[in-house]
Amino acid sequence: MYLIKLGGSVITDKSRPLAFREDVVRRLVSELRPFSPLIIVHGAGSFGHVYAREYGLAGGFKNEEQLEGFARVQRDVRDLNLRIMNLLIENGINAVSIPPFASCENSDGRLKSLDTSPFARVLEMGLVPVTFGDAVFDDRIGFSICSGDYLMEALAEKFRPEKTVFVSDVDGIYDRSPAEEGAQLLPVISSSDSVSAASLRSGVSDVTGGMAGKIASMVKIAPYSEVWMVNGLVPGRLANLLNGEAVIGSKVIP
Amino acid sequence: MYLIKLGGSVITDKSRPLAFREDVVRRLVSELRPFSPLIIVHGAGSFGHVYAREYGLAGGFKNEEQLEGFARVQRDVRDLNLRIMNLLIENGINAVSIPPFASCENSDGRLKSLDTSPFARVLEMGLVPVTFGDAVFDDRIGFSICSGDYLMEALAEKFRPEKTVFVSDVDGIYDRSPAEEGAQLLPVISSSDSVSAASLRSGVSDVTGGMAGKIASMVKIAPYSEVWMVNGLVPGRLANLLNGEAVIGSKVIP
Repeated sequence: MYLIKLGGSVITDKSRPLAFREDVVRRLVSELRPFSPLIIVHGAGSFGHVYAREYGLAGGFKNEEQLEGFARVQRDVRDLNLRIMNLLIENGINAVSIPPFASCENSDGRLKSLDTSPFARVLEMGLVPVTFGDAVFDDRIGFSICSGDYLMEALAEKFRPEKTVFVSDVDGIYDRSPAEEGAQLLPVISSSDSVSAASLRSGVSDVTGGMAGKIASMVKIAPYSEVWMVNGLVPGRLANLLNGEAVIGSKVIP
Repeated sequence: MYLIKLGGSVITDKSRPLAFREDVVRRLVSELRPFSPLIIVHGAGSFGHVYAREYGLAGGFKNEEQLEGFARVQRDVRDLNLRIMNLLIENGINAVSIPPFASCENSDGRLKSLDTSPFARVLEMGLVPVTFGDAVFDDRIGFSICSGDYLMEALAEKFRPEKTVFVSDVDGIYDRSPAEEGAQLLPVISSSDSVSAASLRSGVSDVTGGMAGKIASMVKIAPYSEVWMVNGLVPGRLANLLNGEAVIGSKVIP
């Protein structure tokens, strides 16, 4: 089994609201096409983060006005999801969308529980489950953001995929922000020390924790699955990795 | 509480695939706007029925080719749902979509169980839950169609709404097919006998049981809620009914 996270920074242009990168997603879908079974998780990117930030959803329920934001974020993220579903189905991947909202619960901004039975059922049927980061209910603060990375952790622990891949807009994990001069790609990260150092230096940040949160998720997944980060903006990297070829990227080992 | 079914024949043109009646839905949304709390269920109409019929989904799993149909129906129905969510949110109704897929299970083509907790939670938060008829898993035949009418039954039993309204493309329930000459509208249906007679004579039929199935659902709901059918193609009928005014329509009483 392959567990694939299509990062929000790859599938959307995070600098502009509702900017879907259709060509990139179409190519990534064609790279995924030969591999099965498959579980796909995608980020919310510029479909989720704008209203989530504007209405302060990550910090939980504070006022009635946020309810409009909650509804809008959910609506926009479903819009993004539908665009991805269209490309998957048009390319022969029989994908079924499982919004996290009714299946998961957060607690203080962290995923507390995910009902994985709909995923198991979709897989048993020979279909491809697709889920995504979204605004969900939270048992302590009313609602919060369930990032795609948290969903990756829960799904990796449950399904123990052969390979877990975080498809990002950078070549992998660097020893500091890749925008800084002299930043070095770390092809293998083998200890929590090096991860901590890399994540502390990574400048990128968003409502779902940015690169530091992503690295933390990869460390948690490493005991259950081979776990990689590759650049989805470079054609062929994802397909080559899944084919077992050597590619530019970062692997986190336990 | 008001439980509203926006029938597939109202929100879409059933004679053409993917024909969304945007103007009708926009008006119906504005008629619903003043009323809360609210639960909305919508049919799949021409977004669901085409592939459902083409791939024979209502009869359950028979071959691998149907998986493509299952994925397509789900995708198309989510497309319809998103259009409705857009109109709700643009008109100030903070609606949250709860696809039935992960929350319900069918058994031999009938709804066996629905997890109503996500609905309760959405309502508690002051939001409006929206669900819809869809292709879902079935514990006996693999998958089948969960009609919006079955969801209405389960939701009415759970939430005991003050009024339950089936918004249709006809004025109400007739003593025979409304297309036949001399057909009489039945303003009140008070016994299973008259319902049986009316449903036997109703000529309309679709993959989810058509008018006969709808009347059966209304009979089941009657012990829990005042239950009506009104014509959603006539402006004001829905709003007037919810306002407690006398309107043309049919009421089913226990």
